[in-house]
Amino acid sequence: MGTQATFPLNSWYAAAWGSEVARSLTPRKICGRDIVLFRRLDGEVAALEDACWHRLLPLSLGHLRGDEVVCGYHGLVFNSGGRCTYMPAQQTINPSACVRTYPAVERHRLVWIWPGDPALADPTLIPDFHHNDGTEWVGEGGTFYSLKCDYRLVVDNLMDLTHETYVHAGSIGDENITAAPFDVTHTDKTVVLTRFMIDIEPPPFWKRLLNRPGARVDRWQIVNFEAPSTIIGDVGVAVTGTGAPEGNRSEGVNGAFLAAITPETETTCHYFWNFVRDFDRDNAELTAALNKGHVNDGKGVYDQDHAVLEAQQKAIDSNPRLPFYNLNIDAGALWSRRLIDEMIAREAPAVVATAAE
Amino acid sequence: MGTQATFPLNSWYAAAWGSEVARSLTPRKICGRDIVLFRRLDGEVAALEDACWHRLLPLSLGHLRGDEVVCGYHGLVFNSGGRCTYMPAQQTINPSACVRTYPAVERHRLVWIWPGDPALADPTLIPDFHHNDGTEWVGEGGTFYSLKCDYRLVVDNLMDLTHETYVHAGSIGDENITAAPFDVTHTDKTVVLTRFMIDIEPPPFWKRLLNRPGARVDRWQIVNFEAPSTIIGDVGVAVTGTGAPEGNRSEGVNGAFLAAITPETETTCHYFWNFVRDFDRDNAELTAALNKGHVNDGKGVYDQDHAVLEAQQKAIDSNPRLPFYNLNIDAGALWSRRLIDEMIAREAPAVVATAAE
Amino acid sequence: MGTQATFPLNSWYAAAWGSEVARSLTPRKICGRDIVLFRRLDGEVAALEDACWHRLLPLSLGHLRGDEVVCGYHGLVFNSGGRCTYMPAQQTINPSACVRTYPAVERHRLVWIWPGDPALADPTLIPDFHHNDGTEWVGEGGTFYSLKCDYRLVVDNLMDLTHETYVHAGSIGDENITAAPFDVTHTDKTVVLTRFMIDIEPPPFWKRLLNRPGARVDRWQIVNFEAPSTIIGDVGVAVTGTGAPEGNRSEGVNGAFLAAITPETETTCHYFWNFVRDFDRDNAELTAALNKGHVNDGKGVYDQDHAVLEAQQKAIDSNPRLPFYNLNIDAGALWSRRLIDEMIAREAPAVVATAAE
Repeated sequence: MGTQATFPLNSWYAAAWGSEVARSLTPRKICGRDIVLFRRLDGEVAALEDACWHRLLPLSLGHLRGDEVVCGYHGLVFNSGGRCTYMPAQQTINPSACVRTYPAVERHRLVWIWPGDPALADPTLIPDFHHNDGTEWVGEGGTFYSLKCDYRLVVDNLMDLTHETYVHAGSIGDENITAAPFDVTHTDKTVVLTRFMIDIEPPPFWKRLLNRPGARVDRWQIVNFEAPSTIIGDVGVAVTGTGAPEGNRSEGVNGAFLAAITPETETTCHYFWNFVRDFDRDNAELTAALNKGHVNDGKGVYDQDHAVLEAQQKAIDSNPRLPFYNLNIDAGALWSRRLIDEMIAREAPAVVATAAE
Repeated sequence: MGTQATFPLNSWYAAAWGSEVARSLTPRKICGRDIVLFRRLDGEVAALEDACWHRLLPLSLGHLRGDEVVCGYHGLVFNSGGRCTYMPAQQTINPSACVRTYPAVERHRLVWIWPGDPALADPTLIPDFHHNDGTEWVGEGGTFYSLKCDYRLVVDNLMDLTHETYVHAGSIGDENITAAPFDVTHTDKTVVLTRFMIDIEPPPFWKRLLNRPGARVDRWQIVNFEAPSTIIGDVGVAVTGTGAPEGNRSEGVNGAFLAAITPETETTCHYFWNFVRDFDRDNAELTAALNKGHVNDGKGVYDQDHAVLEAQQKAIDSNPRLPFYNLNIDAGALWSRRLIDEMIAREAPAVVATAAE
Repeated sequence: MGTQATFPLNSWYAAAWGSEVARSLTPRKICGRDIVLFRRLDGEVAALEDACWHRLLPLSLGHLRGDEVVCGYHGLVFNSGGRCTYMPAQQTINPSACVRTYPAVERHRLVWIWPGDPALADPTLIPDFHHNDGTEWVGEGGTFYSLKCDYRLVVDNLMDLTHETYVHAGSIGDENITAAPFDVTHTDKTVVLTRFMIDIEPPPFWKRLLNRPGARVDRWQIVNFEAPSTIIGDVGVAVTGTGAPEGNRSEGVNGAFLAAITPETETTCHYFWNFVRDFDRDNAELTAALNKGHVNDGKGVYDQDHAVLEAQQKAIDSNPRLPFYNLNIDAGALWSRRLIDEMIAREAPAVVATAAE
């Protein structure tokens, strides 16, 4: 791997769906750190270093007793604050015996972990993924755990949707995407990529959802990146001429794709995704069908990305030619990577940060 | 791996059960050395370097002809002393053409190999594993070949039996072990760990063997380590108050666990084990059941250790935090490792040995 | 791997059977280079670097459109000369946007690739494998792709056929091979190994083909190596005393084995083989049977070599003892390796070439 960090540590990263964390021990690697997750008796999620202070056995191989974790090797006990509360066959407990804890917050159906300096872990910085809540929007979602690529390749992928034309032809991709102009704006924390396709034949996926046979549409993709690695894409179509570009979406259908991409290691990541909609919300059959359209035993839209992303990482690993060459379409991805680089630089020692300018 | 050796070479290591070495070629890696074992016509075991002098093909892929090994590639022949006795298509044999031989002795049902300097290979140094012989004690035994951990982790495991409480709860482990005091003594070659648990409820394993319903017992664990990696544990229970601590075991049952742990590489080992008893010796059904209780498709007592040991090695490989932190219970393991380190230091060049002091 | 190159780049290497290259994209690694092969509309074979200029995705994951390759990620298009002819969502094409092309020539049923300097790729240097053409000789052939050994181990194997006695006993190998004298001659590009076995019992393979019950034979093996890695072996038997050594083969049967051994990486190779004959040429059943005798689910003659070659590479990887020791029988292999080394040295920078003298 490189000598340069590839991800910032001072950030909230999705670590699990809330429904996955129960009264048991769930191991998860985040930013190279082995972490064990469990739900306390009060319902809160705790996150500890997944290695016993004593002999490094993963605590996740032990068991939960109340709010404490009992190591599966010699029975050392750690409370949810990481402090050792029991050592076998001795009365005195070494006061330095503890494992690291990680700030953990459950919000918007996901558990978010802060792998960096706990003093900086401000919950107000958690990305606004309210679409996941099931109130205004509806969708199931899923995760590719241990996807074999640098998390930034997923950011590249989502911040340039022209790939839909080639990777997702026949469902959401067609030549109207590459033909349409797009706009990229940014702040020091966000990038927005906006593309409107006016008066086009809707692609099959949206044609079905709109259900207006014969109608031509305006299609929009407004993709919001928040550094380092969460993306919300506001997407949909409306009957052309009814004012969608100006903000009137009443004659259309609106969806959103959510992506929280968490580095597992430098070359693998966990990709938490969801596709939500704000119409026909009680149609459970449609909800299930939309999820299946995304991930479906290798045949869904995200499965197609999965194959491309892992092949790309493999090529990077074996190919000394770097960095990438870029096209105009990469503007969104380039700005996103620049914000990521700035976050990393801010964490580096002063001298390195200077060099990175 | 480290720059420091992790095992001494001048030592006898168990390489195979005698019953495994027949009139055929058995490859085995010991201390990083590829060795081929076979039984000569006179019944003795021979051990040669498992790589043809000519082009390195493992000799174990060839075949045995009398007491000679014929290479499977070009037919070079080596006698059991390692000397080449035939080269294809030439009359003259290069006198330097030979493969290394290793001192090999069959004793106590095991074949012992000396990977270091042959001049130092004194058979009287072979550990006293007479319990294996089937005369005084009875037991089957088995091997975990290529167990994926540093052999010293197995030493740690056996030199601190408090792990039984957590890893082997429900069979041999309970809280009486951690509650009882223990004593550690050592010489320059051995460590003895002694623990008596007085007037306790016997754990299920021993309760069945003692077969005195309702009786409370004294339980003992006297674990004898001999550097670098053999261990004999004298274990058992007797009806409490009948004098077991003072040496009278007539009202009890006595077993012993034997372990010969042989480095295969720096991070893998062969673990030869046996559990023997000196009572009800003709009960073949009990012998089989005791063996199955130790290794049984992942459900036996040693299978539980297997899982812990490999998980621990994995954690060490991925975790830069070293060395281990220690507890009082680690006294036996710490002394054992110290004796191992001293053996290694004695083999190192003078200057290194000095630095290791 | 070593610091020394193990193969020359300025050479024609077999990359595929012509029949394998169709109107689709075939990935193949040659000398560490990822290459995509396809057949153009005019029937010629094209070979491009298998990594998109833009983001490195293997072009072989895209699709063919006419004579152009469309990348499967963002739709960049490259013509068969490697030049980018389309970029998504932009009018101007970066003139430097191209992927490398490799000289490719289809000859003697094989596709030959030149991984080195294209200016030196002279088609007249392609080895004369006319035996493959199906005109004078007949045979099917096959390939071991990604054989896990340095291609030079296959050269060693074929340039010393005494191994047949041990690896192929019972079919083509017997003790007459090792007993017979042999002769090795060489030029700066070729090595010829000649062995005649006079008045011998034919081995089973040849006995069947000759079909002269009871006849003793003269057997010949005339193995022609051309640097760096193609070999044609002229082999056969004739009734003894009928003049085969002097050139009259009318009372015998003649075959040839062809081998084009292509480095895939430093420690893997593609082994294109064929066994052809010039008699009973319309007997398709015999053709199929001869092929099956060579590769047959692990039971054929070449399957036996396969096992030996991979075991040998494994031994080399784990064994610091180098270089090989040699026997008289290695004369052919030694000269072959010397010619290979000279080719490599000629490609190295001047100072290195000097050092290699």
